[in-house]
Amino acid sequence: MKCNCDYVLHCNTLEPHYDNCATVWETSHPGKEYPKNADGTMRLPNKNLDKLESDVLYHLGLDTKNYDLPALFGDVKFVCIGGTKHRMREFAEFVSFNVFHRKNVKLVNLTKHSHRYATYKVGPVLSVSHGIGIPSMTTVLQEIIKLLHYAKAVDPIVFRIGTSGGLSIPPGSVVVSSWGLNGYLEKSYDIPVMGRSLKLPAILDKRLSQEIYSMASEEDEFQTYLGGTMGADDFYRGQARLDGPFCDHTEEDKLEFLEKLSEMGVRNIEMEAPAFAALTKEAGIRGAIVCVTLLNRLEGDQVSTEKGTLLQWQKRPMAIVAKFISKYLDSSMNGWK
Amino acid sequence: MKCNCDYVLHCNTLEPHYDNCATVWETSHPGKEYPKNADGTMRLPNKNLDKLESDVLYHLGLDTKNYDLPALFGDVKFVCIGGTKHRMREFAEFVSFNVFHRKNVKLVNLTKHSHRYATYKVGPVLSVSHGIGIPSMTTVLQEIIKLLHYAKAVDPIVFRIGTSGGLSIPPGSVVVSSWGLNGYLEKSYDIPVMGRSLKLPAILDKRLSQEIYSMASEEDEFQTYLGGTMGADDFYRGQARLDGPFCDHTEEDKLEFLEKLSEMGVRNIEMEAPAFAALTKEAGIRGAIVCVTLLNRLEGDQVSTEKGTLLQWQKRPMAIVAKFISKYLDSSMNGWK
Repeated sequence: MKCNCDYVLHCNTLEPHYDNCATVWETSHPGKEYPKNADGTMRLPNKNLDKLESDVLYHLGLDTKNYDLPALFGDVKFVCIGGTKHRMREFAEFVSFNVFHRKNVKLVNLTKHSHRYATYKVGPVLSVSHGIGIPSMTTVLQEIIKLLHYAKAVDPIVFRIGTSGGLSIPPGSVVVSSWGLNGYLEKSYDIPVMGRSLKLPAILDKRLSQEIYSMASEEDEFQTYLGGTMGADDFYRGQARLDGPFCDHTEEDKLEFLEKLSEMGVRNIEMEAPAFAALTKEAGIRGAIVCVTLLNRLEGDQVSTEKGTLLQWQKRPMAIVAKFISKYLDSSMNGWK
Repeated sequence: MKCNCDYVLHCNTLEPHYDNCATVWETSHPGKEYPKNADGTMRLPNKNLDKLESDVLYHLGLDTKNYDLPALFGDVKFVCIGGTKHRMREFAEFVSFNVFHRKNVKLVNLTKHSHRYATYKVGPVLSVSHGIGIPSMTTVLQEIIKLLHYAKAVDPIVFRIGTSGGLSIPPGSVVVSSWGLNGYLEKSYDIPVMGRSLKLPAILDKRLSQEIYSMASEEDEFQTYLGGTMGADDFYRGQARLDGPFCDHTEEDKLEFLEKLSEMGVRNIEMEAPAFAALTKEAGIRGAIVCVTLLNRLEGDQVSTEKGTLLQWQKRPMAIVAKFISKYLDSSMNGWK
């Protein structure tokens, strides 16, 4: 059993073996606290949280004083986040039917009164919208991380399901991300903190991404790829598109750039990957990104496929993640966990 | 009448005087096309758009082939964008009642089928949600800019109304922004384009912000300020908060940073200002940002005021912008325009 603690912040395997991990962690990160307790609950390194009488998770509309978070969310094992409220409601319905075989379940948006994000809970699965782009996603992801910590959730796994533009692969393909690339072509999430850049590595959990990739089957109507994902900070020129309101580059510049990305191993472009990879890693949570591609960016910029087809394609990452959850739960009942 | 064409991309006055502007523009920007036509419609500098058979404004769920954009949106004079769908519906209701004296108007979300942003139209006023953070806001703002261009809207004015954390001013105060500051304390919006940084100035229309500031009255229950606005890329450590899941700085570091911002003239922190300032400027559109502050960041990090009070405070920027729109429309009927 290989522990990748020199690379990631926690043991990179599905089977927990914390004692071993903690030892490797102590050796490779002297003086830094290991971010998990022996029972699999999280140990957030920010000690300021202990001083708060109540912690208001403002964008979720929850807090630690008026809500019994362990009772409400202590059983959460999987969190799946994705762009739109509509899609995350669909994912909750999909999981409800395909994983738990329950029809017509009444879903309630648990964070409706915050007016920001939508949250649905189906057994141990939480389905949460994150909007568009890194700042929107990190706002809710950080509150989810705090929520999982306060709820004492055990070994949670967080997925992002999304849409993206593909590179040299057919539209409708699915990409499981190995790492995130920022707009300056670095595998890191760079965030300005008090005027200075904090650089966090954007590498995703290797074993988890391979486990998810292995869910792909020859019977699927689509191809699944494992590869890098660029997370851009802009939908138009930030992704070398020519069709935004502003554009100072030529088609040749665009193609040269996209081919460069392709050579680096980037399979798709979306707007969240580096930050998702960095923050799940920092929290010691296993995280994975599964996106469908809506177009091949080497062939164009416009998302002009008919909406019904796009909505069907968006179910592909859902199907893969649901299959993984099913398999995980089955295996865990059979002692896999 | 002072023309600021050396600083901004169009004449910085409420009264159009394009011939004069165009002359100054030609002199100060030789070889670059002036971004407005003589009739006040926009002239986007991206010539690739002319080659498109149909332009799909993907996140608005509109396109130039199936929708008669001039018929639908040609009369738009004001666009107001803000974070949540709920707030932007409220703004549409507010304007309907307070500007046009219409009660119980049936509002329709014109971009509902895109599943991304909400758009309401009340006469010449468009009210659109933009989510959280720069990438989410610029995605819809760029599509609005293209929409206004295709619709041949005349001299549109774009506002952002929002919530923010204040610096050394009482919670519930309103800030009209003079400029945006990025996380590296520069008055610019820096966007990675094909691996390199594109730096755009983040200065807001001086005259418009002063016009809006002048809407404040001694009878208001709150104070209104004119000042700088920092637009952070993160809600937690990116705003020097101590209460995120991760925090490597002390309270002293935080206060030192916030005081430094305050000394620079920053009155509030939100997550969109530099990009909003830069893109409206680049498009030759007058733009303004009006935010309420939900807390004084020098006194804390948590947004713990009761939700009902927060929702009341959020109406303050709406009231100011609606007052400006009323005054503008009245003056325009009296020949002001």
